[in-house]
This record gives sequence, C-alpha cells and structure tokens, in this order.
Amino acid sequence: MTAVESPNQVQRKTTLAEVAAMAEVSLATASKALNNQPRVSDATRRRVIAAAEKLSYVPNSQAQSLISGRTNSIGVITSDLTGRFCTPILLGAEDELGVTSNTVLLCNARGDALLEHKHLEFLLSRNVDGLLIVGDETDTRPHLTVPNHVPVVYVYAPSDDESDCSIVCDNVEAGAMAVEHLLSCGKRKIAIIGGSNTKPNAHNLLLGSPSAAKARLDGALKALHEAGLEPAGPVRFSEWTESWGRAATRLLLDQGVDFDAVICQSDGIARGCMDVLRERSLAIPSQVAVIGHDNRQLLAPDADPPLTSIDNCSEEMGHVAARALLDAINGRPHHGVEYISCRLVQRESTLPM
Amino acid sequence: MTAVESPNQVQRKTTLAEVAAMAEVSLATASKALNNQPRVSDATRRRVIAAAEKLSYVPNSQAQSLISGRTNSIGVITSDLTGRFCTPILLGAEDELGVTSNTVLLCNARGDALLEHKHLEFLLSRNVDGLLIVGDETDTRPHLTVPNHVPVVYVYAPSDDESDCSIVCDNVEAGAMAVEHLLSCGKRKIAIIGGSNTKPNAHNLLLGSPSAAKARLDGALKALHEAGLEPAGPVRFSEWTESWGRAATRLLLDQGVDFDAVICQSDGIARGCMDVLRERSLAIPSQVAVIGHDNRQLLAPDADPPLTSIDNCSEEMGHVAARALLDAINGRPHHGVEYISCRLVQRESTLPM
Repeated sequence: MTAVESPNQVQRKTTLAEVAAMAEVSLATASKALNNQPRVSDATRRRVIAAAEKLSYVPNSQAQSLISGRTNSIGVITSDLTGRFCTPILLGAEDELGVTSNTVLLCNARGDALLEHKHLEFLLSRNVDGLLIVGDETDTRPHLTVPNHVPVVYVYAPSDDESDCSIVCDNVEAGAMAVEHLLSCGKRKIAIIGGSNTKPNAHNLLLGSPSAAKARLDGALKALHEAGLEPAGPVRFSEWTESWGRAATRLLLDQGVDFDAVICQSDGIARGCMDVLRERSLAIPSQVAVIGHDNRQLLAPDADPPLTSIDNCSEEMGHVAARALLDAINGRPHHGVEYISCRLVQRESTLPM
Repeated sequence: MTAVESPNQVQRKTTLAEVAAMAEVSLATASKALNNQPRVSDATRRRVIAAAEKLSYVPNSQAQSLISGRTNSIGVITSDLTGRFCTPILLGAEDELGVTSNTVLLCNARGDALLEHKHLEFLLSRNVDGLLIVGDETDTRPHLTVPNHVPVVYVYAPSDDESDCSIVCDNVEAGAMAVEHLLSCGKRKIAIIGGSNTKPNAHNLLLGSPSAAKARLDGALKALHEAGLEPAGPVRFSEWTESWGRAATRLLLDQGVDFDAVICQSDGIARGCMDVLRERSLAIPSQVAVIGHDNRQLLAPDADPPLTSIDNCSEEMGHVAARALLDAINGRPHHGVEYISCRLVQRESTLPM
C-alpha cells in the first residue's frame, strides 16, 4: 500500500483564477494581461503581473497555449545574404528560447522590402508569437508595421522608431577598446586604417557597413583624446579588404609616418597590414602591434602571428534579443536601443606590458 | 461597346476533371496522383501525369491548395553551425522554389539527433510540403523516418538509404579538376597537402570533413595516374588550417622535395602554403603554382596573389535539391545520389599556358 500524501505535503500550483482574484480583474483580463493581448490598460497589466509574481504563478503550458493561442514559434526575417551575422545571432536566440519549447521560422528577405513584407505576412499567418528582424548592416532600418499584439525585436540594424526595441553592437565601445588595449601594451603612436565609409551595395554586403567604420573611428578618437593623443598619420577609408590593408600600410610606411601600432577596422585589413609589415621586416608586435575588428574565425586565430581582435559578441546579441522578445511576449516590452558590449580577444599580434 | 470575344479566341484552361476523364480515374484519384498523396498505384499515377501533360493541365493554385492541403512551405533541417554550406544552399533553394509561392522554415539541429527529431515533428505539424535535410559534412548520414507522403531530399551529406534522393558535391571530380588544371599550366611535379582525415568534432566543424579529404585525394591520384604521374613527395593529412599549410610546405621544402605546383585541399592550407613560398622567395606561380579548394570568399580572391580555387557550387546544389524536392512533391520522386559538378575559379596563383 502506498502512502497517501496529505495535501500540505505537495506544493499546490497557483491558478490563473487566484491571480485574477488578487488583481481584482476577470479571468479573461488576467489571461490577456499575462499573454500580452491588446485591450488591457497598462495599469491593469502591471497589477496582474505583480499579482502573478507575488503568487509565484507558473502558467500551465498546455492550458496557456489554449488560452493564449501561442504557437511557441518565433519568426526571424533576415537580410543577411552571407549568414555572417545572422548565424551566430540565431544560435544565441535559439539557446535562449529553449530548444524544447520554441522553434524558429527563418525567412531571408535579401534586402528587398517587398519580399520582407511578404515574409512578414506569411509569418503572421503562421501565428508566430513574436518576430526578430535581423539586419545586415548597422545602419538604422525602417520600422515594420505589425499588428500590435505581435512583439518585434530588431537586431543588429536598429529600427528608426525609437519606441521599438533594438539590440545592436556597440561599435563606439569597440573602437575605444582597441585604443585602450594598445595603450596598455605601451604603444603611443597609433595609426588607424579605416574600412568602407560608403553605403554597401549588393556586391559588398559581406564587407561591413559605413556606420560601423564611423562608430569605430569615433570611439577610437575619443579614447585617444582622453589619453592626450591623436592618431599617427591620416585616417583613410576605402574597403574592408586585405588588399586595402596592404595598400594603406604601404602608404603609411612610404610617407614616413612614425607609428608603433595599427588599428585595422576589419580582420581582413589587419591581415593585409601584417603582410606588408613582414615584407618590410618589421617585427610584430615588438616594433608594430596590430589589432583587428570582428574576430572572424577564418582570418584571426590562424594568422601569422595570430591576430588580436575585437569580437562583436553576435551570439550574445541573439541571447539578449531573444530575452527581450520573450519579455515582450509576456507583456513586458522593452523600448529603445540596447547596446551589446564587445570583447577583446588577445592573441600574439599585440603584447600587453 | 466592347467586343464580345468568342469562346474560341480565349484558350480555355484544362480542368482536373478532364485530366481524370482522359486517365480514366475518379477526380479524387487524379487529385491524389498529381499531389503525391498515398494510396495511388505507380501505374495510375503515371497515367494521370501523362494525361495532365498531354492536356497541358496547369493547376489553379488556390483550388490546388484546398484539394492538396499544400502549405507552400518547405522545412529545412540543418546541422551546419557556421552557415558555411547552409547559407548558399538555402539561397539556391529559395531562388528555385520561387519567392512568390514558397517559404522556408529553418531549424538548426546542431548535429543532435534528438533535436533533429523534435524539429522534424514540428515541421510535420506545420504541414510542410517537403523537407530538405542539409548536412554539415560530406559523410553519409542516417535516413530519416518520415510519414511517406512528405518528400525528403538530402543535401551535402547523403542518406544511408540508397532509395532516398541525395544531392552532394563531387569531391572526386574536384580533386581531378585541380590536377588537370595544373597539367594545363605545364606543371608536372605536383605536391598535395591534405586536410583532415579524422572525424570532425564540435570544434572543427568549420573546417571540413574526412570524406572530402579522401575523395579529393582519390580524384587527384586518378588524374595524375592517367597522366602517368605520381604526387611529388608524400601526401600528408592534418588539419584544414593555414598553420598546417605553413608547416606542410616547410616540410616539403626542408626535405628537398622537387615540386613546381601544390594542390592544397582547402583555401586556408593554400594561404599558409603561399606565405611560406613567399618567405623562401619562391615566385608564385612561375616557380610554384598553388591551387586551393572551396573558393572561400574571405580567403581566395583577396590573397596575394589571388588564389585559384575549386568552387563546390553550393548554391547550384540548393537549386538542384529544390528542383528534386518540387518534383517529389509533384509525384515524381528522384532516387539515389546526384553529384553536382565543381567549377574552377582561375586567379593569379596559377598560370595556364
């Protein structure tokens, strides 16, 4: 004979009815408030959420799905043709959403507004619980008009509507971080080789975006100025490529610029720069330290010497965006732009003191 | 007053009823046959398809959707963590499926069989019309058990069930193509630096697969033997990396191997090889020609000199896979492995005579 547990031994789950009673609203209103449905005032929604938190209310997922009409699926629309940014962002988002309860529906809009609209309609017809809109460049992108009960989070490229929630990488901080690291290596004569400062087109989507170049420069200049310094030599912009890195480095050397470190705004530029330094028999990092941006796995770790670089933490961006989207789905939308910090990946092309 | 067209002036659309009548089957059977539903014999299906082709039957897409239950969506399950293969394959598939009528639902199984199964169930619950299963390596993968009216096409990694349809790249041909190109450049002393011949693990998924290394070597040896040649020096395998390319090239030079060309089984290996050739003041391509594999955009075009490489045509693979899937959805399933040809991308690291 098995023991019969007394009711007190089992912690009974709080019901939605109890939450509704405490918040002094109807069951329907409590459900709407917790499931981010429209036609609930902000004050009521806050009261219901407070009651749910106080009672440690954990929704029954099956009942919740029936009540809320949730499908446990998230729509993602990307314009990232190369997968460069989108893949790590998606991995981070999937980790966060929990592989056991949410599935990602991916649509590639290829930078085409009409196609994006078509994908949006499709995803809405599939009753996705929320939408991640992943950009392919760091410029502001147009706000998407979506029925207001479906939450949207913008990733990488921020929405032009400030009340939207956008999760982007902090390229200004990345620029400053590069300078601060080189200063910590005892370098004071820091040259900067810029990437592209023109709008990317269909052929160079791979190679970055003008806002990234400007933001990285702004951050670097700010950090230099704080140390009472200016860049060594002129800062030139052209492309994100290795061949530009080679050309720009030859220019600096041939024009007699005196420098002991170079910030390259992409890892490709840094690879080209290191090629020319080696060609001219300049030792890396003792004579000239080199730092890149983006920490691309194909370019940075296996360079000769391995390249120190600033990682944009795309996967972390996916985590944060997914958390913001889940918050919005649960009635706690975020607003405005949230910047994700970068991370220095120290390798042998720089040598801290 | 507008002219009244006579019925003969407008080409009237063939109806499904007419197809059924010609094939001497019921309307329901004709519909099942054309929409790849089960419980129709192969003979009947062939008769209905022949009648539809003879009458130039074009299904009304809305009626068809009602009859067939089609959702115009394709499920894709990938285990490609990096997007290296999957992104171009997806782009090709999307092109082929037609952005106006089909949408792709993407699930990333991350090489986890349980997660793959969960994604499969989800996609089936969404009534996808068909499934593309995109592998992350070229090894054979296990057949997926799917209710038999949902067609499946395997891409990149073939199914271990020969009756399945698999679309893969022809690495044997790629290996032969590299040799034939170097012979056409007048080179006869061809060294080969292999990639990894061990199973990839979570940390080197990026870097290729053992089958690719073996298949590329098999193709290269076959082409060398046909020309009455053997590889210059021993063929060694280690990794797909630049540092292995540097080490292997130093080994060849230091052991006094006499070679005038190197086939590198990845673009990364080729980059490392060219670094060492430059370091030893050997002119590329006049003294030593170098050819890579994969034609990676970050590594090959902007190398110094730009690297000749064999492109696996992943986007073409996506096109062919999508066409095979549409055929299967329309009752004409393919069976067995179809190999997609590679393509030589000529750059300055080799010089044809």
